[in-house]
Amino acid sequence: MTSTRESIQISLVQLDNYGPWTVTPSPRRETDLQALQARLYAALADFVGNHDGYAFFDRFDNMIAVTDGMTVPDHERFQEQIRNQFPVTVSIGIGVGRTPTEALGAASQALQAEGSAQDADRTEQLATAGAVGDTRGSLTVAHFDVVDVTGEFTDQKAAGETSLAIQRATVSLASYLREEHEGIARFVGGDNIIALCPSLDEGAFEGAREHVQATTGIDLQVGVGEGETPHKAGYRAKLALEECRETGRRIERFSPQATIDR
Amino acid sequence: MTSTRESIQISLVQLDNYGPWTVTPSPRRETDLQALQARLYAALADFVGNHDGYAFFDRFDNMIAVTDGMTVPDHERFQEQIRNQFPVTVSIGIGVGRTPTEALGAASQALQAEGSAQDADRTEQLATAGAVGDTRGSLTVAHFDVVDVTGEFTDQKAAGETSLAIQRATVSLASYLREEHEGIARFVGGDNIIALCPSLDEGAFEGAREHVQATTGIDLQVGVGEGETPHKAGYRAKLALEECRETGRRIERFSPQATIDR
Amino acid sequence: MTSTRESIQISLVQLDNYGPWTVTPSPRRETDLQALQARLYAALADFVGNHDGYAFFDRFDNMIAVTDGMTVPDHERFQEQIRNQFPVTVSIGIGVGRTPTEALGAASQALQAEGSAQDADRTEQLATAGAVGDTRGSLTVAHFDVVDVTGEFTDQKAAGETSLAIQRATVSLASYLREEHEGIARFVGGDNIIALCPSLDEGAFEGAREHVQATTGIDLQVGVGEGETPHKAGYRAKLALEECRETGRRIERFSPQATIDR
Amino acid sequence: MTSTRESIQISLVQLDNYGPWTVTPSPRRETDLQALQARLYAALADFVGNHDGYAFFDRFDNMIAVTDGMTVPDHERFQEQIRNQFPVTVSIGIGVGRTPTEALGAASQALQAEGSAQDADRTEQLATAGAVGDTRGSLTVAHFDVVDVTGEFTDQKAAGETSLAIQRATVSLASYLREEHEGIARFVGGDNIIALCPSLDEGAFEGAREHVQATTGIDLQVGVGEGETPHKAGYRAKLALEECRETGRRIERFSPQATIDR
Repeated sequence: MTSTRESIQISLVQLDNYGPWTVTPSPRRETDLQALQARLYAALADFVGNHDGYAFFDRFDNMIAVTDGMTVPDHERFQEQIRNQFPVTVSIGIGVGRTPTEALGAASQALQAEGSAQDADRTEQLATAGAVGDTRGSLTVAHFDVVDVTGEFTDQKAAGETSLAIQRATVSLASYLREEHEGIARFVGGDNIIALCPSLDEGAFEGAREHVQATTGIDLQVGVGEGETPHKAGYRAKLALEECRETGRRIERFSPQATIDR
Repeated sequence: MTSTRESIQISLVQLDNYGPWTVTPSPRRETDLQALQARLYAALADFVGNHDGYAFFDRFDNMIAVTDGMTVPDHERFQEQIRNQFPVTVSIGIGVGRTPTEALGAASQALQAEGSAQDADRTEQLATAGAVGDTRGSLTVAHFDVVDVTGEFTDQKAAGETSLAIQRATVSLASYLREEHEGIARFVGGDNIIALCPSLDEGAFEGAREHVQATTGIDLQVGVGEGETPHKAGYRAKLALEECRETGRRIERFSPQATIDR
Repeated sequence: MTSTRESIQISLVQLDNYGPWTVTPSPRRETDLQALQARLYAALADFVGNHDGYAFFDRFDNMIAVTDGMTVPDHERFQEQIRNQFPVTVSIGIGVGRTPTEALGAASQALQAEGSAQDADRTEQLATAGAVGDTRGSLTVAHFDVVDVTGEFTDQKAAGETSLAIQRATVSLASYLREEHEGIARFVGGDNIIALCPSLDEGAFEGAREHVQATTGIDLQVGVGEGETPHKAGYRAKLALEECRETGRRIERFSPQATIDR
Repeated sequence: MTSTRESIQISLVQLDNYGPWTVTPSPRRETDLQALQARLYAALADFVGNHDGYAFFDRFDNMIAVTDGMTVPDHERFQEQIRNQFPVTVSIGIGVGRTPTEALGAASQALQAEGSAQDADRTEQLATAGAVGDTRGSLTVAHFDVVDVTGEFTDQKAAGETSLAIQRATVSLASYLREEHEGIARFVGGDNIIALCPSLDEGAFEGAREHVQATTGIDLQVGVGEGETPHKAGYRAKLALEECRETGRRIERFSPQATIDR
């Protein structure tokens, strides 16, 4: 058995001087920008996915990835790919910390120390904070979704209403986990919210659920997984969430006795 | 000069039975799903962009597009492209309404009437409500962003904090515009929020700004544009937002005297 | 019924100053270039596909599209999309001619008159020859493949051998159709070769088949379709080729009595 | 210094039952298929590029990659990505051999032994021949292009003529290298042909150049590189080709004294 992880590595991928580029020489067509941003994010997701990492679109011009095990040359390779395939370049801050917020904070500070995101001379920086590529132990992923979202929302309400409800739940959950547990939660599509967490007991997840219920009226369920890579932890979290759907319980942890085939 | 538009056409693009697919036969790798969703959205953005429309990722498994002028066969062509290039298919509801929320509501209801989003037998439906392809007059796009986001947030704060602040502003603005003016606002990356609105006076936009400031402490500025297509209206909104950045005013409307080169 | 087309419109899409870019400041990684070129071509295929056109990768830095009905602003929109989403730009020559080679020749000359493909100052040109967007009548698409390629080649021989055999057949067919009938034939994947032709009788196609057989020993079959758009003509050619597979005949023309559902 | 490589690893990536899929239930739109094939190839190029490999589109439904150092689980990960992001799946044969044609032949046979490419039940096979992931020593990449292609062809002749000339040169070169030296040469865009070769002396490359000149009249130049990975060998070949352009010599080998910065 792996011990609880003492650290996590998070990379902040920032498009260089992107805002000014989007309006030079005149504002670029919005749908072109939407497609560009989405494909840049897809490239990041594929890249870190091939290293068993996780990726979040965050603000698109600032994307977040869990990159445990990925080295500085791995990140340089990603910068090379973007430079060769897209009209923009990226700078990256890599932070290692005891908790997700600490790691992301370290990544942010390392990158900010290199200059402004809108400094035309600050391109393709790669700044690090901590022992990159050398995190150890297991990490925790919690995969949340809305109980019966299809029956309660998608098939019943206007799409705009459903969307807003899930955004509210996301903000509520992300704020709570950040403030109470130094976790990072992000919307990943549909009614799914994925959180990177320190090792937490069931009471902590129940607290999060109750906070969201109290502030937004939305009933979340959550599968919790641990693993040596973000992918393994996240995969176990998905299996646990499947158990929630079957058992009706609101919190399930992946049972290590269960077989994993990938 | 075009008259104020009496109607707007919005399409709701829904992945067919997507939730079950993502866990069949076992949960699929999250980064693969993230990349898939992003590229599906990019395909939609490109498609409607070529018809001078606008697109929002919304929940990724439910995407929204402003599709004035696009016909039913145009939408069928998009369904064909997705079927031929992706491992999932899409159903579409097209709604025409006097306001954005009315149009999206009509699109949602039309699609819901065809069956559940998780009904394995409901695939590639195309349901309409209203006179598709026949909207008239001009529509309004309002392009918001955060005043000095780079100086105040991106270069100063941890990426997690910035991201949450902008999510809060988005939820606050979207809720307000929906309730007060039947508008639809969505995050489009960076610190940008784009709203589809009925024709509104300056006081309405000031009210929205003040609401967001009061509830989240975030100072927004907004460029407002009108035009016969979403692209033209949105392009003028971007020009107006550029004026905000230059003049320091918080609300600018595109002046029809200004030259547009595209 | 439509009359035989008197003209066809072909667009030559040329990456601007691409060769020098691939080695600046030092040679770029080959796989990045391969992926870039492939996605640029996919963007072109999607774009002209949405106008019922046809596309060929040709040399990737010079791509060919059949663009009947597409206007100059349509082509400008494509240039805009590439500029906004890729690290390179494209110039386009559009030619209208009585035959495919005449149209492509006109497109080439129009573009060459704007300057060299490796002139750093010649970017995003759009040159035309003939009445763009105004071709009339029906055009002919011939869709060839190798008789029993899976049984004879793919499942039997080394991949390198199969590939070379099909390249030889392609060169032989393309040369013959070009010289004898002013047609353009291009490899489109697998064992498929698609030819744009003037209106030709069955003897002409039999002549082409015999030439390829004599020079390369490869037995081709061909489905021939006519239609008002490249897509319709090509779709009928595919249906006719399906008939070849069923009947064992080597040349089939789409029978206008057959139902087409798209 | 690394010793001359005794073996090379080549993977044959074959779309499962693709031909039938393209016409089920009726022929799919050609441009959709073109875009699909191109993006599948881009995914392969990105994937092997991240392992310092090389990729060739070959026939698109059968793609070739040089995958030295890539393991069976690496290939399985690629199969997983395709399954999750595309409407088709892939089977792979991996072959290790003393020469490129031996390796590709072994890969082909291993895959053929699993069943037909058009057997609906043969999906996502992964067959190997030889010690996968364990090749040693350096390999040779030769990067050819046409002397002054822009001045002689692109800016002077009709695009169709240039394209055919380069196809003829490709077939001539590929046939010669295959028969004389068990090498594999493929067109990679523009006027570029890349060959995987055993270790060959300058006379062998001169022989190839002369064969192409004699059979097609086209004057090729070639840069030759060696390295422990396809990327390193190919990068050095590109540097050597740059030297050809500067010195006017027709064959250059990468000088190991030259600095490589990546």
